Amino acid sequence: MITEIVQIDIKPGQEKDFEVAVEMAKPIFKRSKGWKSLEIKRSIEKPSRYRLFLKWETLENHTVDFREGPNYAEWRALVGPHFAAPPEVEHMTDVASF
Amino acid sequence: MITEIVQIDIKPGQEKDFEVAVEMAKPIFKRSKGWKSLEIKRSIEKPSRYRLFLKWETLENHTVDFREGPNYAEWRALVGPHFAAPPEVEHMTDVASF
Repeated sequence: MITEIVQIDIKPGQEKDFEVAVEMAKPIFKRSKGWKSLEIKRSIEKPSRYRLFLKWETLENHTVDFREGPNYAEWRALVGPHFAAPPEVEHMTDVASF
Repeated sequence: MITEIVQIDIKPGQEKDFEVAVEMAKPIFKRSKGWKSLEIKRSIEKPSRYRLFLKWETLENHTVDFREGPNYAEWRALVGPHFAAPPEVEHMTDVASF
């Protein structure tokens, strides 16, 4: 299991539209191979900044199966119009928690 | 409830020492007012980069109670020697999850 972290700055004034678009994308992820969950959080310091935290069974489920398949284009068509800049994407593995 | 996200680049070669230091800091957080949980994740793309995700009851439990109290100095004494650069800290609120 890996976590994809996406940092997205949204066009000011379109924050709620973006939040709705993410909710509308739920069926896209539900049918994506290896997708487990999505969390969306909003920055307190920079209210136009969001981060998405997506859990995937493997790195390739995101980078290959999702990114190179038809679901990615649908996802970007929904949320992309609200992006103020290209998102920053990084993948992380769990080390510990308490 | 808010999430504090800390991005930390560690001096190359000291990654495991840093991970152990975070585990050793567990009692410091356990006695910190409003602290709920800590997760540590490691970047796949940049293996010397970590992120800590700390949940606090309120923003002030982190920015005031923790940061201005004695627990912060203890925490930094444990983990600070492994930092390659000052950490980047941001606070986020939950929007949705599925």
